[in-house]
Amino acid sequence: MGVLRIGVAGLGTVGCGLLKLAAGTGPLASAVALVGVCARSRSAPRERDISMYQWYDDPVALALSPDIDVLVELMGGDEGPARAAVEAALGAGKHVVTANKALLAKHGGALARLAAANNAEIRYEAAVAGGIPIIKALREGLAANTINAVSGILNGTCNYILSEMDVSGRSFDDILVDAQRLGYAEADPTLDVSGADAGHKLTILSALAFGGAPDFGALTLEGIENIEPIDIESAKFLGRRVKLLAKAARVGEAIVQSVRPSLLSAEHPLSRVNGGINAVVVDCEPMGRLTMIGAGAGAGPTASAVAGDLLDLFYGDTRPVFSGPGSVAQGQIDGNGDIEAQKFYVRLRVADKAGTIARVTDTLAKHNVSIESFLQKPPEDAVHVPIVLTTQATHETTLHAALRELSHLDVVAEKPVLMPLED
Amino acid sequence: MGVLRIGVAGLGTVGCGLLKLAAGTGPLASAVALVGVCARSRSAPRERDISMYQWYDDPVALALSPDIDVLVELMGGDEGPARAAVEAALGAGKHVVTANKALLAKHGGALARLAAANNAEIRYEAAVAGGIPIIKALREGLAANTINAVSGILNGTCNYILSEMDVSGRSFDDILVDAQRLGYAEADPTLDVSGADAGHKLTILSALAFGGAPDFGALTLEGIENIEPIDIESAKFLGRRVKLLAKAARVGEAIVQSVRPSLLSAEHPLSRVNGGINAVVVDCEPMGRLTMIGAGAGAGPTASAVAGDLLDLFYGDTRPVFSGPGSVAQGQIDGNGDIEAQKFYVRLRVADKAGTIARVTDTLAKHNVSIESFLQKPPEDAVHVPIVLTTQATHETTLHAALRELSHLDVVAEKPVLMPLED
Repeated sequence: MGVLRIGVAGLGTVGCGLLKLAAGTGPLASAVALVGVCARSRSAPRERDISMYQWYDDPVALALSPDIDVLVELMGGDEGPARAAVEAALGAGKHVVTANKALLAKHGGALARLAAANNAEIRYEAAVAGGIPIIKALREGLAANTINAVSGILNGTCNYILSEMDVSGRSFDDILVDAQRLGYAEADPTLDVSGADAGHKLTILSALAFGGAPDFGALTLEGIENIEPIDIESAKFLGRRVKLLAKAARVGEAIVQSVRPSLLSAEHPLSRVNGGINAVVVDCEPMGRLTMIGAGAGAGPTASAVAGDLLDLFYGDTRPVFSGPGSVAQGQIDGNGDIEAQKFYVRLRVADKAGTIARVTDTLAKHNVSIESFLQKPPEDAVHVPIVLTTQATHETTLHAALRELSHLDVVAEKPVLMPLED
Repeated sequence: MGVLRIGVAGLGTVGCGLLKLAAGTGPLASAVALVGVCARSRSAPRERDISMYQWYDDPVALALSPDIDVLVELMGGDEGPARAAVEAALGAGKHVVTANKALLAKHGGALARLAAANNAEIRYEAAVAGGIPIIKALREGLAANTINAVSGILNGTCNYILSEMDVSGRSFDDILVDAQRLGYAEADPTLDVSGADAGHKLTILSALAFGGAPDFGALTLEGIENIEPIDIESAKFLGRRVKLLAKAARVGEAIVQSVRPSLLSAEHPLSRVNGGINAVVVDCEPMGRLTMIGAGAGAGPTASAVAGDLLDLFYGDTRPVFSGPGSVAQGQIDGNGDIEAQKFYVRLRVADKAGTIARVTDTLAKHNVSIESFLQKPPEDAVHVPIVLTTQATHETTLHAALRELSHLDVVAEKPVLMPLED
């Protein structure tokens, strides 16, 4: 086996982490020769000296260089230079190793076809759950299984914020500011807190688990921006935890994909995953349930995943990009399905006056939504009182209809917050 | 890629689980042709009809058959027919997929050399932690890391018994009888409860993590037979759990391997792994910590692992048998090392008479063993009283010397029970 000549596009902390591994004494150093590099700025301050590598201003030029066999794409972004460089590399029959979940979520299917047409490989262990080798587990280790569901905590920033809210009782906004200061959240946190980043990752897992290509459009997506201390507190009272749960599951003939804040029971395998880490649970036959927990971001974990992919290419394993358990039993992805009835948590703010509670409960009853538990907290101000309730199993569309009717009554002060209960 | 022609030796529940997968509609069915089978009895009642496969009385004849490319060895046992068949297959340049941890723990090094000499592969995902793809994670996913420690709960029977003791307060013997009745424990449970089975698995993980071949001789091994309800109860009082912990760790220049009951803190990633399941924690650089949890035994999980190995062979990944993170940084395995001081739990039964406690504490003090917590329970009978204590960090040999001296005094009624504290 010849040494792989690699070019690295993107020299942030992950890129530098990879340079360190490639220059070390471990297996990666004997498998690869790092030839060329490319980044936005050649002279930016970096942990690693890059003067011994050939510099490219243009990632496409790096991708097309006859000196490299593999492009390592660590730039990020679902369009622009990242997409152009990856397409150029694959088009030229070069393998690509990428950490770019947004690119794969949006263009994964087309890129997989381009790779297949040019006998090239795309490896993307680093794109989902950082250092956790979940792509390998799903694509190879569990390849003979039928997958029933893949769920996960796939965004460390959101999990950090929710965990801190749980421990401190402080508000989302407060903790976000701290997280930004500590470097746990980006200056623009939208991609993380909106759930989009977790959604990108989920669609990749879903493609592997159920077949087809990532389909970011077919995804129910909700972020954590509206979670308040009262929700965290009420969840605790119910013996549950609020987590941003990413979940793709087979429901009858359909595959349902969602990323949304959910109330996890104490027994749920993800309920105790706290802080900035990631975890994935795969439910499958005949294996049963596999849980993997670890660091989902950061230079070290991501570089570990990229290096594992490079070693796989070195050792010559080849199989189709999104092959895995799902490649035979092609599922129909139906992200917005409301196929099964389930229990929900609902938080409302209502006018603090006589008869309000009755109007809420009457409206729910009219829509056949049964209440399982009901919690009215002391008034927060002169006019509003928060109400928290959980429902018996109901279809979400039914619940939405009831809540829509409620919001037309003058008793409800703001848009209700709604979270599924997961056991 | 041609379809792999496989022969299956051993048709118990795992073998039948594999036959089912190979005859299904999933990826395994398109990758393999199941050609021949072999078992102790042709006519034993089985879940699967085996009449369509060629029957072999002798597993060596199956291994040598020109009709097969891969021998799947599911017989078990570290000598006899399993060893003979595996050696025959490898000698003839055929790949072997095996679930046989005892064979690999004892002869793994020699078998790896035999495989290399004949361009054959040995795959053994099913040998460790059943359906959890930990071999793949360690050997491939984390291949670029330096491993600091691998720990695990690797024997479901022991974990089931300890978990039941924890929940019910009942004795080891009582629960073992139930476990045997329910099929969770073998009629002869020695291999499990002595820790040997977990030890076999640990040596395989250790070889991958630290280099070299499995070395079952270099292992501190202690079973769970002597754990009593008072130990479980005292552990709870200390905010801890008793688990049979398998652990291989780099300590300075040495690798220390042990399987022994240990008191895990509530924060330990394995403390909440209950019932008949397995879990493995890998501490490494630069990835950090990876935890994997899942079913460690049974037909489905084991067949899933065997099938994953067969698909790997089908897709043509090849690397040395025990290659992985450890293949470069070869560690010196020193299983009986007492290199680092640590805290211990000690349970003694002493004579219920004046001055006994003083003699115990004096003797410990004389050996410079400091007591961290001390718990004296009410007398169990007219003459003996149990004492439970935890020590400050001490070397185990020092503690042994103190306990030896104590056991020479007439105050100590039986051999003390000793468990390390793990945080």
